Amino acid sequence: MAAYERSVASVGVIAFLAGTLPGLWPGAYRTATVACLVVALLFCLQYIVRLLRESRRLEWMVTGYAIIDLLAAVPVPLALIVGAPDDVARLFGIFWSLKLIRMNAAFALLARVLHNERQSLVSVTTAFFVVLLFAATIAFVLERSDQPEAFGSVPAALWWAVTTITTTGYGDKIPMTFAGRTLAGLVMVSGIGLFALWAGILATGFAQELRRRDFLESWDLVVRLPLFRNLGSSALAEIARLLKVQKCQHGAVIVRQGQPGDSMFFIAEGEVEVRAAAARIRLRQGQFFGEMALISGDPRNATVVALGPARLLRLDVIDFRDLAARQPELLELIKAENARRVSPR
Amino acid sequence: MAAYERSVASVGVIAFLAGTLPGLWPGAYRTATVACLVVALLFCLQYIVRLLRESRRLEWMVTGYAIIDLLAAVPVPLALIVGAPDDVARLFGIFWSLKLIRMNAAFALLARVLHNERQSLVSVTTAFFVVLLFAATIAFVLERSDQPEAFGSVPAALWWAVTTITTTGYGDKIPMTFAGRTLAGLVMVSGIGLFALWAGILATGFAQELRRRDFLESWDLVVRLPLFRNLGSSALAEIARLLKVQKCQHGAVIVRQGQPGDSMFFIAEGEVEVRAAAARIRLRQGQFFGEMALISGDPRNATVVALGPARLLRLDVIDFRDLAARQPELLELIKAENARRVSPR
Amino acid sequence: MAAYERSVASVGVIAFLAGTLPGLWPGAYRTATVACLVVALLFCLQYIVRLLRESRRLEWMVTGYAIIDLLAAVPVPLALIVGAPDDVARLFGIFWSLKLIRMNAAFALLARVLHNERQSLVSVTTAFFVVLLFAATIAFVLERSDQPEAFGSVPAALWWAVTTITTTGYGDKIPMTFAGRTLAGLVMVSGIGLFALWAGILATGFAQELRRRDFLESWDLVVRLPLFRNLGSSALAEIARLLKVQKCQHGAVIVRQGQPGDSMFFIAEGEVEVRAAAARIRLRQGQFFGEMALISGDPRNATVVALGPARLLRLDVIDFRDLAARQPELLELIKAENARRVSPR
Amino acid sequence: MAAYERSVASVGVIAFLAGTLPGLWPGAYRTATVACLVVALLFCLQYIVRLLRESRRLEWMVTGYAIIDLLAAVPVPLALIVGAPDDVARLFGIFWSLKLIRMNAAFALLARVLHNERQSLVSVTTAFFVVLLFAATIAFVLERSDQPEAFGSVPAALWWAVTTITTTGYGDKIPMTFAGRTLAGLVMVSGIGLFALWAGILATGFAQELRRRDFLESWDLVVRLPLFRNLGSSALAEIARLLKVQKCQHGAVIVRQGQPGDSMFFIAEGEVEVRAAAARIRLRQGQFFGEMALISGDPRNATVVALGPARLLRLDVIDFRDLAARQPELLELIKAENARRVSPR
Repeated sequence: MAAYERSVASVGVIAFLAGTLPGLWPGAYRTATVACLVVALLFCLQYIVRLLRESRRLEWMVTGYAIIDLLAAVPVPLALIVGAPDDVARLFGIFWSLKLIRMNAAFALLARVLHNERQSLVSVTTAFFVVLLFAATIAFVLERSDQPEAFGSVPAALWWAVTTITTTGYGDKIPMTFAGRTLAGLVMVSGIGLFALWAGILATGFAQELRRRDFLESWDLVVRLPLFRNLGSSALAEIARLLKVQKCQHGAVIVRQGQPGDSMFFIAEGEVEVRAAAARIRLRQGQFFGEMALISGDPRNATVVALGPARLLRLDVIDFRDLAARQPELLELIKAENARRVSPR
Repeated sequence: MAAYERSVASVGVIAFLAGTLPGLWPGAYRTATVACLVVALLFCLQYIVRLLRESRRLEWMVTGYAIIDLLAAVPVPLALIVGAPDDVARLFGIFWSLKLIRMNAAFALLARVLHNERQSLVSVTTAFFVVLLFAATIAFVLERSDQPEAFGSVPAALWWAVTTITTTGYGDKIPMTFAGRTLAGLVMVSGIGLFALWAGILATGFAQELRRRDFLESWDLVVRLPLFRNLGSSALAEIARLLKVQKCQHGAVIVRQGQPGDSMFFIAEGEVEVRAAAARIRLRQGQFFGEMALISGDPRNATVVALGPARLLRLDVIDFRDLAARQPELLELIKAENARRVSPR
Repeated sequence: MAAYERSVASVGVIAFLAGTLPGLWPGAYRTATVACLVVALLFCLQYIVRLLRESRRLEWMVTGYAIIDLLAAVPVPLALIVGAPDDVARLFGIFWSLKLIRMNAAFALLARVLHNERQSLVSVTTAFFVVLLFAATIAFVLERSDQPEAFGSVPAALWWAVTTITTTGYGDKIPMTFAGRTLAGLVMVSGIGLFALWAGILATGFAQELRRRDFLESWDLVVRLPLFRNLGSSALAEIARLLKVQKCQHGAVIVRQGQPGDSMFFIAEGEVEVRAAAARIRLRQGQFFGEMALISGDPRNATVVALGPARLLRLDVIDFRDLAARQPELLELIKAENARRVSPR
Repeated sequence: MAAYERSVASVGVIAFLAGTLPGLWPGAYRTATVACLVVALLFCLQYIVRLLRESRRLEWMVTGYAIIDLLAAVPVPLALIVGAPDDVARLFGIFWSLKLIRMNAAFALLARVLHNERQSLVSVTTAFFVVLLFAATIAFVLERSDQPEAFGSVPAALWWAVTTITTTGYGDKIPMTFAGRTLAGLVMVSGIGLFALWAGILATGFAQELRRRDFLESWDLVVRLPLFRNLGSSALAEIARLLKVQKCQHGAVIVRQGQPGDSMFFIAEGEVEVRAAAARIRLRQGQFFGEMALISGDPRNATVVALGPARLLRLDVIDFRDLAARQPELLELIKAENARRVSPR
């Protein structure tokens, strides 16, 4: 469904972009308009279907998702109905591009980080806005007599200040006096500081959120594994903190024979096949593989391939040793399980 | 008070900006001057009121706050009194923009980070100043014969070097020789290094300061909660480290029924209302909610809304499990409290 | 071998670059073509030799390494054979530049970080692509009547938007209207946000991967040291986490007499010579030095030089004290070993 | 001495810069030459004095410091002696700018971080150099027919690629074809990636080095404090990790009466004066202050001022509670000491 939506949206955006190019032959504009209309109607249909399926319609209609759906569906046909010319109506196709981002999973993480750090980000931005105002005012005072067109008002100087503090540097307005250039240098360096402050704030925010998200993801899966059923809540939390979720498609090679072994895997969902020289073994949810290479330090002695989509929990060697030292009962569990079957490494 | 000040300052800044636009009708300039004067007089009044209210007037007058207040109040009227033309007097309105930043809470954090990291930042900047000097001198040697106007002196070449190392690139001075362009490439890459070094330094500084500020904020609230009264100092410190302060306005939805539960909340200030299917329950300072979803893993079974402004202490699931494992007595406290009432999850 | 390949590739790239310069004398072009041909033939030869040496030829041929080898070997001669002009054939020499990066060890780390963080990076990029589309559409609406050449279509406005959001700012298209310039300011600031988000994501990813890689590197060496043979797995993991691998060439000075001692070293591979005032002592794999300065706090009392290439495990003073406190048996081992020989500090 | 050197170097650099300005009156050039000569002679003198003072002269002469001293001393007079014109001789004054950075303490930290991370930084840079070569070659192919002057050779296109990937964007060469502009967009985004990767690498490196440096600084002071004499090595390491070194000048206010207390201080060097309402008390090396505010949570009840330069070890409240919980014997020490005297908070 997501792929279908994204394809339709892409077609729509391309039609919308192409439709604004001057100098195309007349048929092309008509084709673009038709394509835009078809895309809009498909999104109309989708909106109606979704609305009918929902039980709480009014609540759904005010969610962000539904508003984007509505923006993708209504404006283009509406503009044509109220009699706007073709080329104006097509412009509303820009809303289809919103369909390209909203289904993205990692986007929620981004939004959370920006939300968490909004205070600091706004503070930095406000401070730099004040720097901008001062820079523009001083540049206006310094340069207005030499360049009355470029620096003839503080708002005009503000345009120079913005292009300079962001280090864009169009070059349409350049201070000429020595004092003006010294000021410009300071403004440029402040711009670098703006970059750096934002980057610093966001780096800190990302580290926190990623740690949190990884834990939540793996916790969900860890509690369902029978292997860990008898461990206490403390041990479970520690394991969930160390395991990383790894998704793989059908046929994906998880472990390759002969390569150094730097992690072991628990199967949270799906099945995998161990392809050793001697035999092929199937492993199911709750089982694990790759632990021998961690214990012995030898290279992998089998290739492991996913059968159908699977979700694995990866335990890196660094964390395996850590865990083995602090949770000896887990190591015992793994060894006991290992003894029960001919373990593929 | 802060909102009032910011509104007045915004009006003043807009009047100041508009007043410098050339080509407005004559009445507009007079209106701008009058608006500037009114804003300045309001700030004068505010300054006098504040001064009279203070007990230690001299000490207050040299604080940063008071100096900004003075700069916002005095220069515009003073300039008019000493006979400066209207358009010069209005320029001093730039100081009003300072009012926009100083009341900001997160600003103190920024200032602390910059203060802590000032040594490293100054070192990087000094080193890049030397790189600038070398770049300008070499460009002067390489380019002066080809472009005597653009690179005719080291200060002129310095202007080129500054616009290049900050990657602003106005394009008014461009090296033409092969050696000059190679130098320019190196200077640009050094500029990227300046960005990256600053960003790296500030990211490190932010991580430290945020950890510290979060702890201080939550410590203040944690020690006041009756629930934690009997815990030792060590347990309190651990709890304060994990809890995050969350402010909310009247009517804000803290927890929504049916959503996955990834945190529990302690009420540090204010009241909330739990809206379950069966009943509505009020919770007061010192009480907590949302813990059932953490323990059971089920989605939220009630919506919780703030009644009036409130301050909550949020405990994320990752930290809840951590804490439950290391401070079992806290888990007991929560369970006992939970047993005493029909707990909303 | 790597150095040989890189030298040949460098010669090839220089010949390829020089060959495109207009205005050289005719012989120069012929020389460039000959040099390109020689380089291509050397790489052809290398490819054939490698292919013959491999036991699993088909598997090898589809590895990234082999494909780069093939791209470096075939296109230039092939183009000449099928009758392409000299200057076109020489252009394929660009593939030689790939030889300059692929042998690089730290490159794998980069690739891993980018791979781990690809979801977040793609999310940010998609979001900014949508911002770009909106910015271009709005700029098109705002500016097309004033500047029909520059902003006459959305794709044309997109070019402006890209140069602006990346803060490149060529200055060939500049919005003129007030609304257009306000939009441009917002786009520039979004561009800084793109930088900052990427930097934040990557900083987090690097911290994780570096920790992991350092551990794997030192673990490999730690388990081979006889000194640590009798320690448990938990102690070994802790030691490996703290030790940093340091490579040095023959003759490199590892420790210099009279300098403050802030680390001790274990020899993982190779030999070193301790040059004290009294005597010269050779230390072999498994031995250690520099521990006296950590214990006493005195400056180094000898200079230590590598004999041939060596790999050392460095233990910083901060980690030494940490380890000494938590693994007292290790401190005992070091003291016992120290007592057995006249220890160079 | 450092301040003297820096002043002389600053005078020299200004004279050198001014001396290259065209259009000054003749006397100015002579003044600049004389000033440059005086500065050079002062540095000559300094070099000779330093050389004579050193016992191991040859060893000293090859240190970085001595080479900078030599570069600052010799070239300008030498150039004049061998008959170079004034304006050429003055150019060697650029070496004086090196004197501005080398005495800087935090510079060593920068150098260490760059040294530690050099592998990753070089990898990123190499990869981007290859991207540059590809971008230039493709731009050459796409644009040479339309713009033979700007993109007529790969080296010429390389100049465009460098200004674009660093987002400098001089605007002297701009691709015109659709494919060329698409390429340019990709190159700009790669440039942002270069920034982000460097920033990510350096942020990680800084976090590691700062942690290390802070520990070494405070360890040096902690071991000398009599208060901690009887603590074990493990406790000492933990304390040193938490304490931050803070330098202050004579008269600096360390703690101000009535402010919230968020840290306590140990005096590592120098003296301070506690100014309470009742009395003034002097504290000497090894004593501490500010602990009462941490224990009680009340605001500071005295102002503390440094008498002469002092070095303090600051313990933040977050770390104080941590330490108090894990090292109860330290809390006992502080309480015992506190009981022995009328403690200023």
